[in-house]
Amino acid sequence: MSLYSLEEVLHPRSIAIVGASDVGRGGGFLRPLQEMPFKGKLYPVNPKYEKIGGLKAYPKVSAIPGPVDYVISSIPSQFILDLIEDCAQKNVRAIHLFTARFSETGRKDATELEYEVLKRARAADIRIIGPNCMGVYYPKMGIAFNTGWPKETGGVGFISQSGQVVGEVVNFAARRGVRFSKAISYGNAVDLNECDYLEYLAQDTETTMILMYIEGVRDGVRFFESLKRATALKPVVIVKGGRGSAGTRATASHTASMAGSQQVWQALFKQTGAISCDNLEDLVDLAVAFYFLPSCSGRNLAVVGGSGGSSVLAADQCEEAGLNVIPFPRDIRDRLRKEGSSIWDWIGNPADFSISMGEREAAIQIGRMMVEHPAFDAIMAFTSIPWNKVGEKFSMDEHVEQFFTYLEDGKPTVFVFQEMVKGRTRELKQLLKLTADMKQKLIDNRFAVYPTISRAARALSKMIGYYESRV
Amino acid sequence: MSLYSLEEVLHPRSIAIVGASDVGRGGGFLRPLQEMPFKGKLYPVNPKYEKIGGLKAYPKVSAIPGPVDYVISSIPSQFILDLIEDCAQKNVRAIHLFTARFSETGRKDATELEYEVLKRARAADIRIIGPNCMGVYYPKMGIAFNTGWPKETGGVGFISQSGQVVGEVVNFAARRGVRFSKAISYGNAVDLNECDYLEYLAQDTETTMILMYIEGVRDGVRFFESLKRATALKPVVIVKGGRGSAGTRATASHTASMAGSQQVWQALFKQTGAISCDNLEDLVDLAVAFYFLPSCSGRNLAVVGGSGGSSVLAADQCEEAGLNVIPFPRDIRDRLRKEGSSIWDWIGNPADFSISMGEREAAIQIGRMMVEHPAFDAIMAFTSIPWNKVGEKFSMDEHVEQFFTYLEDGKPTVFVFQEMVKGRTRELKQLLKLTADMKQKLIDNRFAVYPTISRAARALSKMIGYYESRV
Repeated sequence: MSLYSLEEVLHPRSIAIVGASDVGRGGGFLRPLQEMPFKGKLYPVNPKYEKIGGLKAYPKVSAIPGPVDYVISSIPSQFILDLIEDCAQKNVRAIHLFTARFSETGRKDATELEYEVLKRARAADIRIIGPNCMGVYYPKMGIAFNTGWPKETGGVGFISQSGQVVGEVVNFAARRGVRFSKAISYGNAVDLNECDYLEYLAQDTETTMILMYIEGVRDGVRFFESLKRATALKPVVIVKGGRGSAGTRATASHTASMAGSQQVWQALFKQTGAISCDNLEDLVDLAVAFYFLPSCSGRNLAVVGGSGGSSVLAADQCEEAGLNVIPFPRDIRDRLRKEGSSIWDWIGNPADFSISMGEREAAIQIGRMMVEHPAFDAIMAFTSIPWNKVGEKFSMDEHVEQFFTYLEDGKPTVFVFQEMVKGRTRELKQLLKLTADMKQKLIDNRFAVYPTISRAARALSKMIGYYESRV
Repeated sequence: MSLYSLEEVLHPRSIAIVGASDVGRGGGFLRPLQEMPFKGKLYPVNPKYEKIGGLKAYPKVSAIPGPVDYVISSIPSQFILDLIEDCAQKNVRAIHLFTARFSETGRKDATELEYEVLKRARAADIRIIGPNCMGVYYPKMGIAFNTGWPKETGGVGFISQSGQVVGEVVNFAARRGVRFSKAISYGNAVDLNECDYLEYLAQDTETTMILMYIEGVRDGVRFFESLKRATALKPVVIVKGGRGSAGTRATASHTASMAGSQQVWQALFKQTGAISCDNLEDLVDLAVAFYFLPSCSGRNLAVVGGSGGSSVLAADQCEEAGLNVIPFPRDIRDRLRKEGSSIWDWIGNPADFSISMGEREAAIQIGRMMVEHPAFDAIMAFTSIPWNKVGEKFSMDEHVEQFFTYLEDGKPTVFVFQEMVKGRTRELKQLLKLTADMKQKLIDNRFAVYPTISRAARALSKMIGYYESRV
């Protein structure tokens, strides 16, 4: 008897949802699977109902006529040992236990029950995802645990000890154009653990980069080796939860994890080349960078399209993030002078476009020269609220088209669109719509868009750091 | 002959807009004044038109019949000396020069012209705001330089070398419920400078806190003294533009400012007690904190309302920002046990509300106990996407009402509402609307709302630092 591999677990012919119902919490797992929809057969299991979600319901797993490869359980923990026995009769490959109240409660009987679950599952050749987790999002197979998630697939693999974190990250990333290969919430990790998932995504050809939210590891040596091998193959970005004393207390009551010392984790990041982030915003920002930008190992940055104080603060924040906002290239200046530009000696890097106000063609020309100039390794293009354009016939689209043309050579470019205000006047509403449309157009055309200068600078710098270490 | 004070400059009986027109840039200054509306008389000045914005237009300032106290100029720099002569005949108190292309170009003739402007204005007893700036937003007087800005007044005074920065900060802050006493963009500061504005806002009874965006100062010793006196009276929060080498180049071409060394600025912040921020997001976050929160000099924080990974990351980020997420008070635990709570030994601080899932009353009760407990100096209450509430009849309003009741004792509370996703399903749309309404209701009821945990933690910690230094 050999254990099923994750590849087998993640390709079930059918899924049984135990504890399913049309009301409340129990409906939570069936609905997303119907919405995606799941590519195989779905069997709701609940002795109280004849039909659930329009499907015939079964009183128990062993009453289902066809084969059952995968079971999702949302019934209380005291019924889980019986469930395993029931599943064993059907040769189930894996059970995802949304069911919680095991070791994370800190109680002796609950912890013993968790161990007993593992023992019985092993004996029945059943793999366990969880307990105390949201399970799997695998759009290609039509598996999801939330409604409203993208049906398209992409290259980002995500492993998280928290299901709520998967919910946030998938949603935030989706809004910015990122799509996922697989996202797995694995909770207390009694059987399949962080190393199994990491090793799987490292060799998974559907996954080009790996994100992790991790609270603690069971086997530090194996994790170190797994992480080292994974980072050699693709970028791995990690948010470590439980860094301080309060966070460490919280990981224990959340997933019964031993958070470990910060020094050990810092050393781990350094020695494996995994990228560390402090929060989920930064994690998603890195996903956007690796997902959309070409590789880049130079730090010389051109900042274009800002104005006034925003240009100054962009320069400051990019330098503070470790990027070089180098002086304006001499040969561009010479060229501008020859061509009779009135601002050849004034414009710089960052290119403050309020300087070229009223000389729109000049601004576009300067932008193009900067983007194309070999001195620059990467570009930050940003727009704050373009108040000075209110009331002018100004086509944002034209600017965007220009950028599409510029960027054909594939130089990494990050766009900054700051938070939008509510439009209170007709003109402002019109302007905000233009800006929102431009932002969406950039996202749809696979550009990396960020909400603030500091977040764009931080993500770009960390991404470049990864490619530098590979040179 | 004595110079007019800022108090006199900011209370004009009438404003003449020189270079006004119904099209393009020239319309920019008249329209916001009509929209607010300005409490005195408005005179568009442009020899090309009979009427502008529905008002009779004059060929020059001296042709206006009544008194003219304040002039806004958007005509090119080569006409400014004539304008001053024209204004002198009408005993104008102040000219706001939106007009640019002076010393910020780095050119000798333009710099000399700027000096000549100052000389002639002094001789005519006229104060200059600018040149190269957007001027004044003073809602109580009905003065604004952008359309769509709040007409209500508030206690925040803002001084900025960049008009574009005023535009962003007023808009971002307005959306979060903050209102302004006066916001002044002052550009090259040839006459009235940062010290004049700072000293004015320090003694201004309409202003309870001061924000600054500053690129360079003319007189370091006077600025140090002004800042020290101002911080003794009210909080002063400063974003210094031009911190690195590229930013320093950019301040020169933006407002002809000498950025100064970072060490000098760090020492200045330390010795005066002014609060330093790296970017405009943090500046607005501090404005929200000082505007809505009561004073607070303790750092013991209760984190309530999160779930799973978000609770863990909240604890980490709050501790990293210098707040103490102290262990759950023993006496609350004892009380919960006596009252028969099933999670008395499991719940902690941060209070992970996924632990009390299905025990909604318990969650509300625990939240209330934490908010009311004397061990906690401040509260972070947050909601991420409450995915587990989808499909349940869950009234957000009820939670908000609960919080209003809790918070009657005035303990500082920051709310975290993370960025919203687009609702793709009917249920998600409904949920997002509920959440957006709840957020707006909190803002309308004068609560401090933040978009991320890290920003809320940073703002709260810096605010507490200010009050600690006063104890």
